Amino acid sequence: MMMIITYDVNTETAAGRKRLRKVAKQCQNYGQRVQNSVFECIIDPALFKILRNELIQIMDAEKDSIRFYNLGNKWKNRIEHVGTKHTMNLEDSLIV
Amino acid sequence: MMMIITYDVNTETAAGRKRLRKVAKQCQNYGQRVQNSVFECIIDPALFKILRNELIQIMDAEKDSIRFYNLGNKWKNRIEHVGTKHTMNLEDSLIV
Repeated sequence: MMMIITYDVNTETAAGRKRLRKVAKQCQNYGQRVQNSVFECIIDPALFKILRNELIQIMDAEKDSIRFYNLGNKWKNRIEHVGTKHTMNLEDSLIV
Repeated sequence: MMMIITYDVNTETAAGRKRLRKVAKQCQNYGQRVQNSVFECIIDPALFKILRNELIQIMDAEKDSIRFYNLGNKWKNRIEHVGTKHTMNLEDSLIV
């Protein structure tokens, strides 16, 4: 199945910037970064459960927000992209 | 249907920051902002076509990226959110 993961991590503190890098790195293990805070992961339910728990461990639920969107198995015609596809550097500071 | 709209707008220039505000405002007319650069829009196909064209007019396809994810009509159990739900101020500078 295709899972879309989007996140807003509060980067006002050094701890927040660290969480942001860890969230991005974790998602990178399972999928492809398509925008600063958006990942597309082709993943099976069992692996997704692991990823989801890992992300919940990393984040600060009081300050950060993660959203999971399940596009299912027939996802190819559910996704459209318009514009540039920059290559992402995980270390980049994520200012949109 | 539920459309998820995510975007990265290059804000290195004043023109970019203006595009960013316009993209957010346009999406706000049709849906709800759930993260800095993520909107959820319950919208019919005809209206979505209008919104899509408006966004494409606003953006700079060389510098910006917009992604559309169609969750269809049975979307309620396709979305999960973990963490904080800050209220969004469109004028806020969109630093994640």
